[in-house]
Formats: sequence, structure tokens, C-alpha cells
Amino acid sequence: MLRKSRFIGNARMLHKSVKRTDYKLHRTDIPARSTIFSLIQPTGTFHLGNYLGAVRVWKDLCDLKQPDTKLLFGTADLHAITVPKPNTSEFRRYRQEAIASILSIGIDPTRAIVFHQSQVAQHTELHWLLSTITPMGSLNRMTQWKSKSNLKDLNDADAVGAVKLGLFSYPVLQAADILLYKSTHVPVGDDQAQHLELTRDIAQRFNTLYNREFFQLPTTILAPTKRILSLANTAKKMSKSDPNQNALIYLNDEPDVISRKIRKAVTDSVSHEFKYDPVLRPGVANLINVISGVQRKSIEDVEKDIAKYHSHQDFKNYVTEVLVEELRDPREKFMKYMKEPQYLEEITKSGAESASEIAEQNMKTIKEIMGF
Amino acid sequence: MLRKSRFIGNARMLHKSVKRTDYKLHRTDIPARSTIFSLIQPTGTFHLGNYLGAVRVWKDLCDLKQPDTKLLFGTADLHAITVPKPNTSEFRRYRQEAIASILSIGIDPTRAIVFHQSQVAQHTELHWLLSTITPMGSLNRMTQWKSKSNLKDLNDADAVGAVKLGLFSYPVLQAADILLYKSTHVPVGDDQAQHLELTRDIAQRFNTLYNREFFQLPTTILAPTKRILSLANTAKKMSKSDPNQNALIYLNDEPDVISRKIRKAVTDSVSHEFKYDPVLRPGVANLINVISGVQRKSIEDVEKDIAKYHSHQDFKNYVTEVLVEELRDPREKFMKYMKEPQYLEEITKSGAESASEIAEQNMKTIKEIMGF
Repeated sequence: MLRKSRFIGNARMLHKSVKRTDYKLHRTDIPARSTIFSLIQPTGTFHLGNYLGAVRVWKDLCDLKQPDTKLLFGTADLHAITVPKPNTSEFRRYRQEAIASILSIGIDPTRAIVFHQSQVAQHTELHWLLSTITPMGSLNRMTQWKSKSNLKDLNDADAVGAVKLGLFSYPVLQAADILLYKSTHVPVGDDQAQHLELTRDIAQRFNTLYNREFFQLPTTILAPTKRILSLANTAKKMSKSDPNQNALIYLNDEPDVISRKIRKAVTDSVSHEFKYDPVLRPGVANLINVISGVQRKSIEDVEKDIAKYHSHQDFKNYVTEVLVEELRDPREKFMKYMKEPQYLEEITKSGAESASEIAEQNMKTIKEIMGF
Repeated sequence: MLRKSRFIGNARMLHKSVKRTDYKLHRTDIPARSTIFSLIQPTGTFHLGNYLGAVRVWKDLCDLKQPDTKLLFGTADLHAITVPKPNTSEFRRYRQEAIASILSIGIDPTRAIVFHQSQVAQHTELHWLLSTITPMGSLNRMTQWKSKSNLKDLNDADAVGAVKLGLFSYPVLQAADILLYKSTHVPVGDDQAQHLELTRDIAQRFNTLYNREFFQLPTTILAPTKRILSLANTAKKMSKSDPNQNALIYLNDEPDVISRKIRKAVTDSVSHEFKYDPVLRPGVANLINVISGVQRKSIEDVEKDIAKYHSHQDFKNYVTEVLVEELRDPREKFMKYMKEPQYLEEITKSGAESASEIAEQNMKTIKEIMGF
């Protein structure tokens, strides 16, 4: 996934700037006085991919929080509109469900600042300032805007011309999100690693242009779990936008729904043993990866645990059990929070106030540095 | 200068959306309940081109202001950094000089809101929101980013890649500036007409996507004076960035400086008469255009006035007289204001508060419409 950075220029620095955590985070992973920041797109309730690839790391960080650590987590609702949201009532609900999901997996809003990106105007303010030092060529090399706009041919001027500016400049807003809080660590999924490299590049450009070490270069924290794939088509990752909703497990799925979806999950015809082989047995490997992620066990340990199963039914029942057990508590809490919209609003309002305080102070310094 | 709009699609609408004023604005030019908005880049003290092409129209609007009209004028300091400003103390002074210049030409801060763009965060907030509905192709058709980045060949991928995002997305910030206040009229120079067309296009896109007539399509107001050219090279417009500073008249130039610069202004060898012929006699035509602008007289009337001159010296003495007379008051006021930095700061602080009030209210509605 990670290639040699074009921005940072040498492999040694890249190694220093990216950290893949163990299955369980340890206190020593996070140095003193860290500021840890991450946002997730509000696409409604979270699915297993969001959970294992991103937000469960947030919960681990929350559990490990020291008094001198700052944690900021929230919805990237300003990023969400880079794919237009003309259905505004759905978008409103998605934002609410995302906050309910964050709380339901156990993130404690008295330990972490929880808020919507759109509630803190300084994100877009810093986005503009940083956009004046970010070369178009750096953005052109990013892969996400091309995949999100289904762009086949970069030389097709009409197709490129139809892409909206926001989708193209998305990584600069992401850099602003992170740098606004002078974040030191950013837990993200694999697919965001490229944007984090750009963030470090932009921070360095700012420091160079204004001749001072103002921004630290933030460290990328990658979750230990490999990408979770669609249950129906292992060529794709698990994604909310999948038209086949049986291909995803949501954190608030009822036990019988989980059971049904796992029963329908594609595997293969081999049943005398279940081994991790992502190339020849991608369906089985995906389910093993899910268990490994949930149980925080290595793939090898999971293989030992499931060595006793010699039928798809037994294997899948086990997967179902593991998931039902893991998701019971989040599901119940999610249901509860969704009945308390006023509470959810209070959480983000108070979170946004705390975030704004840090943001305002840093923006004041940034603007002074720039001569405003 | 103005071509048939690609965005608005038909010539009739374009005519309605662009208005070139008479030499003197009339009360009837501005309908009731108008909001008139314009910013100028803080490149220091104004020169004749800024004055006749832009800010004197602001003063005229200020003089005509009705109680139900809103006027917002200021520095486009967020736009200024699209050409990097690592010399921050110079940039700080330029911002101050721009405010002093605005006040010294007679804009009354009790009638018009005077502020720095960077003091109102909602400009950049709306910029982000609008960037998600603005196609890259529309920006690609703009001419300013190509000229400002000295881009010769659009197919030169390295050269395009080196252009900073902010320079490319500049017109979207300009659209946000204007639409943030639901402005109805925008006085600008000829070179901004294309950006105003894009502003109307973006406003229309927003209205269409969210299915309501929220933004009015603002009318462009063009100053009557033709572009003022460099005194040394009539192939270029008068510009602060000219390495030959004898090519510009600043509003705070002393009479003897004006006299010297006009004496050095390129003309031609014909001296028995001085006629307006921009092709064959561009230097003389430029000076006639200056007189016409300052005196608010048609070119024909200026030609009659100067028919009596049959030597370069007499003609240029007349130009000098006209300029010294016009600029006496602004120069004195500019000197005075520059000695009162505290006062200048108070003006923009109080202006920014008034602007923020309107901006906040409109942003609240815009975000509600979008589902935030």
C-alpha cells in the first residue's frame, strides 16, 4: 500500500512518519503531550470496515488517554459534500448517526472532544491559507479524487473538467483539519496514508516559507487490521455505497441480521479446513481477517482457533458468534443514543466549543506569522 | 473585453448582468435595498489605475448611499497571498496603506463597511462549500491564473503542476466574497468581469442543486474609464509590480513627483495637436484617458479642452495640473491616516464586526439549506 513518498523524498523519514500499531495499542505508542486527531465521513451508522479500520483505534486511544494528551474525533461533514448531498434530510440523519456511532463504540466525550468539522470555521480558513502554498501537481498525483469521480483517463479534458474543485482540493482541507490543532498523531485507514504524506509536505512548505518550525510533521497511525472486504464481492472493500446491503455488517445490525449476512457471505467449496489465503480463498480470508480484528489476535492464532471446524456452517456460526458478541453493546447503545438527539447535539456543541478554543488560538498565531 | 458568456448562455442575460456606468454615477443606477460589495488587493497605496478603474466608483456609491443600501468595501488580503508574501512586514504595511487609501479618497466608514477580508472567517467557509459545486473546467477557462503564473502552454504538465491551488481556485473565493453578503451589485475593473460571470454561474448552480432561489445573481458594475496604461510602456497596464516605478502615479505622490513622472511619460513626436488615437498615439491617448477619467469628461470634450496646446510641454503641464489638483486632498489625508495606525485598526475592526453580523446570518441559512 505505502509507496516511497514523492514528497518526503527518502524512505527513512517515511518510516518515521508512519506507524502501524499492534493489535492492541500500548501506552508507549503515544508520547507525552500528544494531540491526536481524526475525522470520519458521516455516511450513517458505521460498518465493520469503519470500525476495525478506524474508529476502534479511537476508542483504544481514548482508553489510554493521559491528562496531557488531547484527543479530537468527529465527522468530516465538510468532506462529505464533495459528493453532493441534495437529499439534505438524509445528510442530517447521517451526521447524527455518525455521532451516535462514535459514542456507542465507547468513546467517552469527557475524555475526547467529539464534534462536527463544519462547526469549527477555522478548518476552512486554514484550508484557504494552505491552498496558496500547495502545488496543483501534488494534488494531481492523489488517487482518491480520480477513483471517487470514476475518472478513467486523465487526458480526457471534458471528464476532468466536470470534476468539482472540492473533490480535487479535498486533501488540502484534510491537511488543514490536522494542522489546525497542531496534531502529532493521526489514526487513519490505509487509503488515507497518501493524504497524510501530503499533509506533512504542506506543513514543511509552510515552515520553510515562513522560516520557522511552526507545524510538527504529524505521524500516521495505521490500524493493525487489514482492509475489510465486501461479503458479496471480495474484489471491493466493504462500503456503505454498495448497492448490495447484504455485503456489509453494520454496528447496529440485530443478531439474526448478522447471522443471515454471514450465511450469505461468499466463501468457496473447500470445507475440510479454513485457512488464511487471500489470493486463492479471498472470502474465507476476509472472514478470518474480521475475527482477527475483532479478537485482536494474529491471523495465525485465529487459524488455530478455527482448526476444529470442518463445515462452512460451523465456521460461519463461529464468525457470527464473535460478531454478535462484539457488537451487542454498541448496538444497544446506538439505539439508546438515537432516541436522544438533543443529547447528541449537546455533545457536539460542547465539543465544537473546546475544538474552537484550540483552533482560534492556533489560527491567531498562524495569521500573525503570515502577516495578517 | 466582454465576450458572450459561456455560463449564462445568452447575450440578453449578459446585458442585464453587466452595467457600465456613466462618468458620474446616478442615484437611479442603484435600485432600492441594494447590497454593493467590492474588495481590492492590498498592494500598498493606490495608483491611478486602481483609483479610476475601481475605488473612485466606491466613493461615488458612498456619496449616493440611501438608508436602505448596504456598502461593503475592503482589502482582498486573502487573495493577495495567492502570490506568496514571505515578506510579512511589507504585507502588513500594504494592508494598512490600502485602508488608509480607501479612507483618503473620501469613503466614509460611517456610510460604508470598511474591513479586511481575512477578518471574516465566513469568506473561506463559503469558499469551501461553493468549491464542492464548481467544476474544474470552469476554473480552467479563467484567464487570470494563467497570466499570473506566467503560464505559456496549458499542455506543459510540469508548469501547470507548479501552479498553487489558491491561484487556480481564486475565483471561487471571489464568488464566496460576493455571495456571502447576498450582494446585488459588484463594481469591478474590466479584468474581473469574467470572474463575475463565474460568480453568477455558481450562484445559479447552488440555487438549482438545493431547489430554491436563495442567491440573487449579482450585477457587474464596470467603471466608465478605460484601462489606465503604464506611463513608460503602453503595451502594459499601470501596475504596482512594474519594476519601473516612474511608470505609475500613486495617489500620494507629491506634486513635483507627479510633474517629473508625467514629463517622462512616453508620447510621440507629433506636437501640433493632441488627439485620442490609442493605436497610432497610445502614449498621448493614455494621458487623454487619464484626464477624461479624473474630470469625468468624455474623450471628445477633453480633446476640445486640449486643442489649444501645441507643444508636449504645455500638454504635459496641463496633465500634471489636473492630477495635482485631483490628488491634493487624497495625498494629505493619506499622510494623516498613516500617522494613525490605531485609528485604521479600529475602523477595520468595527467594519469586520458589522460584516460578520451579515455574514453569520447568511452562513447560518446557507448551512441549514445544505443540511448541516
